[in-house]
Amino acid sequence: MTLTLIALDQPTSDFAAVFTRNAFPGAPIILGRQRLAESSLGAIIINNKISNVCAPGGSDAAEKISTATAAILGLDSSQILPSSTGIIGWTLPTEAMISALPAAASQLQADSILPAAEGIVTTDLYPKIRSVSLGEGRIVGIAKGAGMTEPNLATMLVYILTDLAVPRDTLRTMLQSAVDQSFNRISIDSDTSTSDTVALISSGTVTSNVSLRAFGDALNEICRDLAEDVVRNGEGVRHVIRTTVTGAKDNEFAHLTGKAVVNAPLFKCAVAGNDPNVGRLVQAIGRFLGNLPDQVDASALRLTMGGHAIFANGVFQLNPTKEIALVEHLKQAELYSSAPTADGVFTPPVDYPTHERCVEIGIEIGSGPGQAIVIGGDLTHEYVTENADYRS
Amino acid sequence: MTLTLIALDQPTSDFAAVFTRNAFPGAPIILGRQRLAESSLGAIIINNKISNVCAPGGSDAAEKISTATAAILGLDSSQILPSSTGIIGWTLPTEAMISALPAAASQLQADSILPAAEGIVTTDLYPKIRSVSLGEGRIVGIAKGAGMTEPNLATMLVYILTDLAVPRDTLRTMLQSAVDQSFNRISIDSDTSTSDTVALISSGTVTSNVSLRAFGDALNEICRDLAEDVVRNGEGVRHVIRTTVTGAKDNEFAHLTGKAVVNAPLFKCAVAGNDPNVGRLVQAIGRFLGNLPDQVDASALRLTMGGHAIFANGVFQLNPTKEIALVEHLKQAELYSSAPTADGVFTPPVDYPTHERCVEIGIEIGSGPGQAIVIGGDLTHEYVTENADYRS
Repeated sequence: MTLTLIALDQPTSDFAAVFTRNAFPGAPIILGRQRLAESSLGAIIINNKISNVCAPGGSDAAEKISTATAAILGLDSSQILPSSTGIIGWTLPTEAMISALPAAASQLQADSILPAAEGIVTTDLYPKIRSVSLGEGRIVGIAKGAGMTEPNLATMLVYILTDLAVPRDTLRTMLQSAVDQSFNRISIDSDTSTSDTVALISSGTVTSNVSLRAFGDALNEICRDLAEDVVRNGEGVRHVIRTTVTGAKDNEFAHLTGKAVVNAPLFKCAVAGNDPNVGRLVQAIGRFLGNLPDQVDASALRLTMGGHAIFANGVFQLNPTKEIALVEHLKQAELYSSAPTADGVFTPPVDYPTHERCVEIGIEIGSGPGQAIVIGGDLTHEYVTENADYRS
Repeated sequence: MTLTLIALDQPTSDFAAVFTRNAFPGAPIILGRQRLAESSLGAIIINNKISNVCAPGGSDAAEKISTATAAILGLDSSQILPSSTGIIGWTLPTEAMISALPAAASQLQADSILPAAEGIVTTDLYPKIRSVSLGEGRIVGIAKGAGMTEPNLATMLVYILTDLAVPRDTLRTMLQSAVDQSFNRISIDSDTSTSDTVALISSGTVTSNVSLRAFGDALNEICRDLAEDVVRNGEGVRHVIRTTVTGAKDNEFAHLTGKAVVNAPLFKCAVAGNDPNVGRLVQAIGRFLGNLPDQVDASALRLTMGGHAIFANGVFQLNPTKEIALVEHLKQAELYSSAPTADGVFTPPVDYPTHERCVEIGIEIGSGPGQAIVIGGDLTHEYVTENADYRS
């Protein structure tokens, strides 16, 4: 287990957080929701390996760790946000964690966020950091993935720090909006973690004349980039699939259409095999439309893959030359080739992503102004290897 | 490609069919819906390999094959139900199929339905037949799976024949009811085929005093058994997962809760690895409950696996002895061991299911009288192998 401590020079009243919508949230989530009502926040203490969800005595454990962290930093326990990720159901080794806190505090430094980005990972292959400079200040965010990742949010912990002064209420509105357009528009596997957290903290030390609009744009950029990073490093992901949905009734309809595609196992498997099986793409969209209470006119649907028209006027638009181009598009978007060891174990070889290309799916519904970009991954042997015996 | 012809001795007015709800149905489905309005049905002509979905000229192809089949049998084309399954988007080789029809007709026989059950398969490992004798008559059904299988219905073709006289309207009501409790309560991979069909045909030759209730019960039994057969022979399935949901607000709520579990990739992977990762089970239920518009009291949830209590009063009920028993339950339900060849290809070795045991999940929600049994499979390397390059 790694303990990661993020401490502010001074507690701040300007902080925001968005948590999982899972109905069985972890103890740190329950506590974190209470912290939103506190007047200030001074530090975040994060552990990996065990998520402290529905474990006997879980709330007490989270409180004890907050109290011990506060004592070391000269803060009140109400100023500490605890976060946990890892196995669901196991009990935190509270005493051992408290014993390790002084060492974590002694390593606090102001030079780099990389150790924190490295400390919070579980099955991630590499740390994820995004940063935007703005006027005389900066926004920097770190994230962990990498499975149990759908909307609301993911087994995903994201911490975004800024020195730019933005008041609490504005931070909270902006964070929810940024999350809706980023972390809520990705899916590794359609599962939703019990521990998802995105926190945003402003130290307020830089009060230059950066507009709130510029701040919001930069925050959206950080969240979108980190969200795509989470998918690119999703468990077993070898292709990132980006669906751009347009012409929907409204944005939410477009969002759900994209989700239906990136969560369709058969299409995800086809992408893994560099197989442009567009029939499975149409199946996935047709399943979504067919399950709606109101009948949708599906005849206006137009699909592209890698910019090539593949479906229009109710029939496929395919020929052998186009099929070859589609296979090439899929191969270009592959992060690495799949290869098992002699005993059938598939292991991802990448330390950092080899490129940032996506399998590009265009979905024009032809019934309104709604649009959304939804990002997901393929379904691979590496995903099954990772998840058929993660605990053992 | 295999052509399978099922012909009645005499056309009958007593027939019923339920089709996919996918918004992009195949041409045979569109034609099949029209056939329901016809006065009689005389034969079904089925091909595998190509599903005739959204292919240019698909409706014409289905009509031509109906007409050619009718000509050979001395029927009208309106009395023929065409069915197709296989790759979506490809065009049927209509002329070659018409040339092969006389050979298919010459093989018609009244001894056994086994050749038909064998003829309709695609990736199925074995034919699926269920039969119930009733008074002086009988109901016999055949089914194909094996992927793209969720509700409404599955890449699933099911043909149920009976000599017992039951009028058309009653047949149709009974079939919809039986399908709702069987084929709509299974999921291999949450995908929904564009070609799903369940047809029920009564020749009406036996008019013994079998009650409609007894007939309905036998039909339900056939459908339930065939539905479980479809899952047990689902693509890559090594464990059948049976969720028994009780105490829900209503039956539909129970149904959706069960679906949320059997469609949760991380839990399915854990089952594949004989890993009783009950945290992922709680996550899956919590995701479903957390996404509902109304808040649900999750504190009354009680879970069992293999009859062992694993969750109650908001916390896990686990200990090392129980974990060993849970692993044993999973191993007992395994259909075969997973083993790759030297080049990493996983191939299911079974010709027929080795047993009929399930991973038994009990979910008591504690808020009402609703209940449902929902059946699904695990997520395995064999599934990925089968679907990453099915077309090639």
